[in-house]
Amino acid sequence: MDLFPVLRELHQKSEAKILLVVLDGVGGLPLEPGGPTELEAAKTPNLDRLAAESALGLLTPVHPGLTPGSGPGHLALFGYDPFRYVVGRGALSALGLGADFREGDVALRGNFATLSPEGVVLDRRAGRPSTEENARVVARLREAIPRIEDVEVHFYTESEHRFLVVLRGEGLGDGVTDTDPQKTGLPPLEAQALDGASAKTTRVVNLLAERIRQVLRDEPKLNGALFRGASGKPAFPKVGEVFGLKAAAIASYPMYRGLAALVGMEVLPVEGEGDAHEGKLGALKENWERFDFFYLHFKKTDAKGEDGDFWGKVGEVERFDALLPEILALKPDVLALTGDHSTPALLRAHSWHPVPLLLKAPHLREDEARRFTEGEAQRGSLGHLRGVELMPLLLAHAGRLLKYGA
Amino acid sequence: MDLFPVLRELHQKSEAKILLVVLDGVGGLPLEPGGPTELEAAKTPNLDRLAAESALGLLTPVHPGLTPGSGPGHLALFGYDPFRYVVGRGALSALGLGADFREGDVALRGNFATLSPEGVVLDRRAGRPSTEENARVVARLREAIPRIEDVEVHFYTESEHRFLVVLRGEGLGDGVTDTDPQKTGLPPLEAQALDGASAKTTRVVNLLAERIRQVLRDEPKLNGALFRGASGKPAFPKVGEVFGLKAAAIASYPMYRGLAALVGMEVLPVEGEGDAHEGKLGALKENWERFDFFYLHFKKTDAKGEDGDFWGKVGEVERFDALLPEILALKPDVLALTGDHSTPALLRAHSWHPVPLLLKAPHLREDEARRFTEGEAQRGSLGHLRGVELMPLLLAHAGRLLKYGA
Repeated sequence: MDLFPVLRELHQKSEAKILLVVLDGVGGLPLEPGGPTELEAAKTPNLDRLAAESALGLLTPVHPGLTPGSGPGHLALFGYDPFRYVVGRGALSALGLGADFREGDVALRGNFATLSPEGVVLDRRAGRPSTEENARVVARLREAIPRIEDVEVHFYTESEHRFLVVLRGEGLGDGVTDTDPQKTGLPPLEAQALDGASAKTTRVVNLLAERIRQVLRDEPKLNGALFRGASGKPAFPKVGEVFGLKAAAIASYPMYRGLAALVGMEVLPVEGEGDAHEGKLGALKENWERFDFFYLHFKKTDAKGEDGDFWGKVGEVERFDALLPEILALKPDVLALTGDHSTPALLRAHSWHPVPLLLKAPHLREDEARRFTEGEAQRGSLGHLRGVELMPLLLAHAGRLLKYGA
Repeated sequence: MDLFPVLRELHQKSEAKILLVVLDGVGGLPLEPGGPTELEAAKTPNLDRLAAESALGLLTPVHPGLTPGSGPGHLALFGYDPFRYVVGRGALSALGLGADFREGDVALRGNFATLSPEGVVLDRRAGRPSTEENARVVARLREAIPRIEDVEVHFYTESEHRFLVVLRGEGLGDGVTDTDPQKTGLPPLEAQALDGASAKTTRVVNLLAERIRQVLRDEPKLNGALFRGASGKPAFPKVGEVFGLKAAAIASYPMYRGLAALVGMEVLPVEGEGDAHEGKLGALKENWERFDFFYLHFKKTDAKGEDGDFWGKVGEVERFDALLPEILALKPDVLALTGDHSTPALLRAHSWHPVPLLLKAPHLREDEARRFTEGEAQRGSLGHLRGVELMPLLLAHAGRLLKYGA
């Protein structure tokens, strides 16, 4: 069910400001049965006070049992059905690297591989080189291959054996098959066009693979490339048009800035390194009057979870708690706090578990939930929502949705 | 996801009688944080006793954040996906007015407007005339314009500047654009046909606008008409065919009688004025043996909510509580009590909040919910349902659904 045609008809103006705070990967698990989750272990006096006067609920970001990547998890929170609005692998990498990636471009993920003199794949990851080694070889490729035919070729280091190629030129479709044979002892596959509009891209990808092999023939390990995930930059409908929102994004990491830009948010500059808490708060305050929706992202809860660092994640929750009074001082009319997915330190990875959702807004019902934790959220009056259902709820509490049907 | 093909295959006969009681707009909000909702404030000894031996749950009538009109809210409770089964604006008005409205007719909502001698809109609502003034002018139009070409034209007063036109004739499509220019200083728009089947209707609507201007040229204010929401009478599948139900509707207000008729319920006569509690109970008792499904509607909870009359709404809940023993004396096998949407007195309007659902039936699980209130419903064993999901649940508890798949 695509709700966009309905929402396009129903949105109206309102003075109310909406602030959506995403603590990346905030949902957790106890380290052992009966123990606390990261949120339960954290000392969060400010958040506790807020939770007591808010409504809570559980939010399944994408679908029960599905572990969301950053793309689907965030798109759902932005109100975009993550099964309908799909960002290809190459495009996601381009967003994650903050690459210059434009409509009409095609992005491909590359792996450096080791090929035999006969052209057979000996190692699909070229012996897992260091990221520095990758950067050295990428610099050689940039120098040697600025274009194929009339198509610009832009190389970016990702990490270890992974790199990114952005192709820029006229008439590039992204229906191109992967060239990774998925096992050693075989030559790389010839890329195939999946549609007529992608014939040129396909030819360029195959020529590119050949040129890379020529240029890197003196490299002992990084002497070939395998490509996958060819994708253009998606042209999604924008939050201004669908929801009637003038929206700003405040995030440090390129992936989240890129995802917000895809849906038409204005991405604000943030000063400072890393998660840049002060820089984010500064951006929020300075721009408070200019927008009616803010997406504010914090990354470190996820990063600590991915590291398996339970107490580090607890500490990040507590750091957020310390920032909360400054955020609340802005008096957002509608404040939502949630995660784009769970990242339990126990699993050292994203997981499929629901995340708590906190909503402070006019016209809430009372509930008995007293903390922003997984367990308390189950008792909340918001019930159990899907990620994609959050945005209409925020719009409703902001007075931005007309009645559906007479 | 359309469940109708599945339900058509699965329904079977049963002796069990289902009674669906809809307290219109029953969900509420506290007047101030920490206070009771209308349902919580009401003294309802009979309902409390029933709730203690029933299962409860929360029901989101249409979608989180969406405020349902009466049409979508009711169609969902009747088991009809409100995004798939849409009743156009003109058709809903025709149902609401109890107009003679037949398949093949096209209904349009009209606004009386004030036009300048040059034909420019000076006031899109003709100075908001009284409903009596509207009726006087509608009587003139009835007299003067019985038909356009071979198409019958039927005028109805709605209220203030609003009226309804029902067109009846051969070959009338409803793909006709609105003629309201949405601002003053412009002439009314020419209606445009959205499809070939609506060319005749479009011509008739444009001729009608011209004729109305001629007839009313001596009126100082109500001298023009703007049209919108052209819609035919929807031909929905019927509850008998989809669910295997012989269903009766007991409601006083034309809108609800009309919606029930659209889905194939037999609409029973109800004696008495207004909400006619005694007349409804009489109709229920007299016809108890003739049907296996009853929809019983009470309107005043919504009306008091729309008036912003918190204690009036409380009183309507208590009036319903007093009726309850007589309803229970009929011993319905499956009794559901819910609302089609919330209408918190605080908001003086429909709202998007979920409504409580009470189910008394065989084969329920125990729960701890002890009152028919928003807060208790959160703790109920039925969990959190969508409106459209209710009907299959009622059929199941009535023993009317076979196993899905082997």
